Amino acid sequence: MIEFFRLKTIPEVLEITRRFMPLKVELIPLAKAYNRVLAESITALEDVPEFSRSTMDGYAVRAQDTFGASPGSPALLEVVGEVGMGEEPRVPLGPGQAQRLATGGMLPMDADAVVMLEYTQELADRTLEVYRTVAPLENVVQRGEDVPAGTTLLHTGVRLRPQDIGLLAALGVIEVKVYQKPRVAIIASGDEITSIDVPLQMGQMRDANSYALAGQVAAMGGEPQLLGIVPDRLELLIEKMAVGLAETDLVLLSGGSSVGTRDLAIAAIRSFPQAEVLVHGVAISPGKPTILARIGSQPIFGLPGHPVSAMVIMEVMVRPLLTCLAGESQVRKDWGRTIKAVLSRNLASTIGREDFIRVRLCPAGGNMWAEPVLGKSGLISTMVKADGWIRIPLNTEGLEKGEEVEVILF
Amino acid sequence: MIEFFRLKTIPEVLEITRRFMPLKVELIPLAKAYNRVLAESITALEDVPEFSRSTMDGYAVRAQDTFGASPGSPALLEVVGEVGMGEEPRVPLGPGQAQRLATGGMLPMDADAVVMLEYTQELADRTLEVYRTVAPLENVVQRGEDVPAGTTLLHTGVRLRPQDIGLLAALGVIEVKVYQKPRVAIIASGDEITSIDVPLQMGQMRDANSYALAGQVAAMGGEPQLLGIVPDRLELLIEKMAVGLAETDLVLLSGGSSVGTRDLAIAAIRSFPQAEVLVHGVAISPGKPTILARIGSQPIFGLPGHPVSAMVIMEVMVRPLLTCLAGESQVRKDWGRTIKAVLSRNLASTIGREDFIRVRLCPAGGNMWAEPVLGKSGLISTMVKADGWIRIPLNTEGLEKGEEVEVILF
Repeated sequence: MIEFFRLKTIPEVLEITRRFMPLKVELIPLAKAYNRVLAESITALEDVPEFSRSTMDGYAVRAQDTFGASPGSPALLEVVGEVGMGEEPRVPLGPGQAQRLATGGMLPMDADAVVMLEYTQELADRTLEVYRTVAPLENVVQRGEDVPAGTTLLHTGVRLRPQDIGLLAALGVIEVKVYQKPRVAIIASGDEITSIDVPLQMGQMRDANSYALAGQVAAMGGEPQLLGIVPDRLELLIEKMAVGLAETDLVLLSGGSSVGTRDLAIAAIRSFPQAEVLVHGVAISPGKPTILARIGSQPIFGLPGHPVSAMVIMEVMVRPLLTCLAGESQVRKDWGRTIKAVLSRNLASTIGREDFIRVRLCPAGGNMWAEPVLGKSGLISTMVKADGWIRIPLNTEGLEKGEEVEVILF
Repeated sequence: MIEFFRLKTIPEVLEITRRFMPLKVELIPLAKAYNRVLAESITALEDVPEFSRSTMDGYAVRAQDTFGASPGSPALLEVVGEVGMGEEPRVPLGPGQAQRLATGGMLPMDADAVVMLEYTQELADRTLEVYRTVAPLENVVQRGEDVPAGTTLLHTGVRLRPQDIGLLAALGVIEVKVYQKPRVAIIASGDEITSIDVPLQMGQMRDANSYALAGQVAAMGGEPQLLGIVPDRLELLIEKMAVGLAETDLVLLSGGSSVGTRDLAIAAIRSFPQAEVLVHGVAISPGKPTILARIGSQPIFGLPGHPVSAMVIMEVMVRPLLTCLAGESQVRKDWGRTIKAVLSRNLASTIGREDFIRVRLCPAGGNMWAEPVLGKSGLISTMVKADGWIRIPLNTEGLEKGEEVEVILF
């Protein structure tokens, strides 16, 4: 049985990754919510702050009582007490009066400004000299000025940053609904692959890919699970894939790039009910021998065996799929994932595929240069020497020295 | 006893943070090493790969046997066997011979190239037709081509990326020496601060800062520990600080900005033997009322109480201190932490301090605009609305609309 698969373009693959649904929602304590994806929009139920408060150490006053005050002609006010921290003032503020309070203290009723300690002097008989005019609302955070009740500042699909967590705390949110963190199984396959903790025999290769891929999964907000190495035997591969499918949300087969290994991966995928091969080969270099399939609603990637190729596919295709599973919307831009640079040499490319070229960044002579790190896609050291990569689009014959390029940073 | 502290400039504070020593070294399994900082340089003890191997499915050949081959005039070779995956070839390759092998397979002795399967046809009598000339080393990764024995690609002080982990696996490194992850205690102080899980009374404020700071610590590669809230009582603050000093590597006091709270923090720090206040006030806005002290060799920060101020100090001063504790050298640049943009309005500043202004990024009309998010430093919502901040240097009166600015991304 011979099947013909047309190479898919990157946009076609991305369209397919978007068909997968976000994972389930879970309720977690706020202290664990950093970098998780919100599965609900959060609306303030009350004003933040709930009362007007001082931003300085000083005296709560009626601003108009200080109008015209200066060092030569101070306003004279009567000190009628002190507002304790965390307490509600006991009495309202009458005309000509002042109440002492510290930063964060609540303004008494009828006070509308705070004069800083530095511009006052309290005399023995509870008389306060004020040496400066303060404007209404000066040194005051008004009730609801941070977040008015009814405002929605954080929406479903946002990945929570430190300040977002702080805002949630300020709103009194103790637990948040977030999407589950994608669990990702990594299976290495191939008769030549051996575990890093046994001595290497001639002809064998250490399982470097599992470790690099696990790092990428963690960097993308997923939870990697190394399931170990499977030799090229169909029943063992099926068995291991079944474990991955049962325990995780996405299975990555880090396979050899040989035709035999690819055939085996396809056969193993097909052995499951409701299996469908969605992508079998992509117009990308490196990374062409990539498989994407679904088993029921669960995605499974067959990654190329060369480490650079596998890492390109992770970045270009697995990342968007994980974004999708994680429920992350693209409201917030990934500013800073790329940087502009000048290409340091000519690069040839082939029409009909997208090329990804590793580059090192070198600032020199006022320019940021992108210097290609050449080398076969089997060499992981080239990734260690590089800072990012540039993309040569599908229908471009190459790029010229001196061209401005966009470097996708690692 | 009145002491006079001169405001320190940011470079002065940074010089002080650099005096703290890296934490201890620990040995951890490679699978846990992603994003940790290497505490040893790693030199390859053997060639990677240890043998020349094929990058394609095909036949190992002597390149010169294919010279002149074309579809019309194929070279004829004798197939003398197959190299099993992960196995050492049983026999060397004689003149005029070919051995079948798959991607990753080891080249037999005296073979120097691989001809791809696509350019061959195997006839019934073990004769192979080769339709293309291959050059020596074509489709071959040579012994030591990835990493020659004796090479040092990863140095002490490097934060490990996915590909670095992959390289370590390829070198057979099972465990790595890394610097301990900085543990950071966060203590909230102030009579007005209440835990987020109790109902808020009038005059009180929820402890939002602890949560925002914990997120920042995690983002900077540290391990946050929330130690809860202490009221403004010296003995309780000392007690809590002692816990933080015993259990972590850095204590952050998230205090009120009031003079009373600051005095209390200083008194608590001074109560420990070998305490020294290193910084008391910084020429920065927001964030002026910042304290940095050491107790023995352990650093302790007194952060300003306003959330925006505290987050600025975390970024500008605590981050470099954590870098230092984490043993991270600055060999690898933080490309992508900043982005260039055009300022959308005039901004005034005061000579003699550095100003940090929150901005939102807005791409429009082919430009990336940096639009200031104005608002008091007590408003955490302004941080939620912003994408990063810009810095107005010490001796600048302000920035003008249309100026190019560098935005430090969150």
